[in-house]
Amino acid sequence: MPTAPSANPAVDTAAVTALLERGRTMSTPVLRAAVDRLAPPMDTVAAYHFGWIDAHGRPADGDGGKAVRPALALLSAEAAGAAPEVGIPGAVAVELVHNFSLLHDDLMDGDEQRRHRDTVWKVHGPAQAILVGDALFALANEILLELGTVEAGRATRRLTTATRKLIDGQAQDISYEHRERVTVEECLEMEGNKTGALLACAVSIGAVLGGADDRTADTLEAYGYHLGLAFQAVDDLLGIWGDPEATGKQTWSDLRQRKKSLPVVAALAAGGPASRRLGELLAADAKADTDERPGAAGGVDAFSEEEFATRAALIEEAGGRDWTSQEARRQHAVAVAALDRVDMPEHVRAQLVALADFVVVRKR
Amino acid sequence: MPTAPSANPAVDTAAVTALLERGRTMSTPVLRAAVDRLAPPMDTVAAYHFGWIDAHGRPADGDGGKAVRPALALLSAEAAGAAPEVGIPGAVAVELVHNFSLLHDDLMDGDEQRRHRDTVWKVHGPAQAILVGDALFALANEILLELGTVEAGRATRRLTTATRKLIDGQAQDISYEHRERVTVEECLEMEGNKTGALLACAVSIGAVLGGADDRTADTLEAYGYHLGLAFQAVDDLLGIWGDPEATGKQTWSDLRQRKKSLPVVAALAAGGPASRRLGELLAADAKADTDERPGAAGGVDAFSEEEFATRAALIEEAGGRDWTSQEARRQHAVAVAALDRVDMPEHVRAQLVALADFVVVRKR
Repeated sequence: MPTAPSANPAVDTAAVTALLERGRTMSTPVLRAAVDRLAPPMDTVAAYHFGWIDAHGRPADGDGGKAVRPALALLSAEAAGAAPEVGIPGAVAVELVHNFSLLHDDLMDGDEQRRHRDTVWKVHGPAQAILVGDALFALANEILLELGTVEAGRATRRLTTATRKLIDGQAQDISYEHRERVTVEECLEMEGNKTGALLACAVSIGAVLGGADDRTADTLEAYGYHLGLAFQAVDDLLGIWGDPEATGKQTWSDLRQRKKSLPVVAALAAGGPASRRLGELLAADAKADTDERPGAAGGVDAFSEEEFATRAALIEEAGGRDWTSQEARRQHAVAVAALDRVDMPEHVRAQLVALADFVVVRKR
Repeated sequence: MPTAPSANPAVDTAAVTALLERGRTMSTPVLRAAVDRLAPPMDTVAAYHFGWIDAHGRPADGDGGKAVRPALALLSAEAAGAAPEVGIPGAVAVELVHNFSLLHDDLMDGDEQRRHRDTVWKVHGPAQAILVGDALFALANEILLELGTVEAGRATRRLTTATRKLIDGQAQDISYEHRERVTVEECLEMEGNKTGALLACAVSIGAVLGGADDRTADTLEAYGYHLGLAFQAVDDLLGIWGDPEATGKQTWSDLRQRKKSLPVVAALAAGGPASRRLGELLAADAKADTDERPGAAGGVDAFSEEEFATRAALIEEAGGRDWTSQEARRQHAVAVAALDRVDMPEHVRAQLVALADFVVVRKR
């Protein structure tokens, strides 16, 4: 059972900044060398996606994302008593899979902005988004398997399982957009697949490369899985109430896409007048989508800012926002509790706790 | 240097039919069980793609393709002295990767027909084509890695390398469509990546799973690589002059897509009046494409059958058709010669030769 939620934790910002920076600094050169292997023009398209060049091919110092996963993969190696360097191929492989999924998801979801820049399919076209995503996925396996060790084989198997779950989660996410009702449990399962599985893998992959046994790896994955659910709950809040300046996404991003995210399903499940009114509005929106011919004007894209604001206010009034905030803290508590079941250096545990704290209070 | 081309070989049709049938019979149940793991609706979409159900979900006995790769993977195990069964996970993994690439390529290329049926993106939409392709790719690695052996790790690494080359080849293929001139060498490199690499892997993967060393696996891959080039040369001929009834594709399929396939690049490289006239026509076609706004009518899709027939006749007149037929036989000869460098049971060698013979005379 989830632990009772606490207030938001106080975050050791300096420690987390240093950790994320270390993950980025240690993994990026290997990531760039891997991406350089791609045949043109895929190398250029990937470099644009990672923010290393702009749309005209000029060097850029773009936002490459928060880099939570690389930081976790290095800590993961240390949790198994290995040097952080041992986790680097794992960090790179997980980052490649994560970015493969971003490239494909942005195209499938029609998202035009990520990290304050036009998405790859907007700039380089759908074919390149598909192709470069495929290439990054293949590269992830290649980076690990060319280590040629038994541990690398085990790590690749875990990464492959996580990737399959991630794809399952995206399939659920898409199918839920077309359904009138999605339960809170279904939503949590989808988010566990879509976000939990790969974060879990990030936290086990360094340890596996460092020789950890399966029990240790599984327990580290429990931390990562619940961390992922906390992460996603916060993402769902930011997807509706986030500041576009901070998130780099459009306003009301998730509402535009009819995402059945946690605040929405929790609000619909809550009952009461606001919940019922929200249900009526969303059902009418869905009907308008169905009636609309593909490619025609109208439907959700034609909504005004005000109409999105009305929906967001109803979600909040029905309790969807509060419930999701509490859920983030519940998952955070479960994640941190899992760390007690692994024997690891105390400073590593403290850093994993600090990262978990950061995940639930972040604004982007 | 390629061996001098011979006349088309006489094919032992009964032997090849039995081999392909064995590959299909032994691998399909494992393939279907793998596909059943996919979360809905991906399992249904994949079943449609493989021809197991129709677009309405009714059981079908559709054309699942020639199944050359599974047949090769089983022979590959036998070439290493193992039972054909040892090659089954390899056969399934290679078939999954092959179909992952078909799903994505059909979408990228805008192909509406495959195996006499509407392609997945036409029936189930682009998002499902992307997603199910991704899932099949992940599944391929999963099937191998869950064997948990050192050999499985080696097999997965070879499959990953082949997949990366396959993606490189598709990237080259797409970029060549936008270029006025492509050399014969560039075209052969692209086709080696796009078709040779995965056929090569099909011929080594069973042997690797059966414990073959890297030298044996590499030599088997040489056979497979050149077999792939022969296969693709024939595909290029069928892509222009194939019977739509037999191939299941549109007439002039490759000309519609401006594919710089072997007959085209060989014709352009040949010189002479027909070659020059062809060059002028294709340059004008490319210009018309560029001038045309995306989504607008006109351009190559508005061509009449007669205009395609003119281009095909010029390619033939310039010698592109003959050269490609000879190239298929040259590659066939190199492939068969590679088999002499591997110590394998004589009946296995004879079957690999029969398959190579089949590949160059097939009509679909």
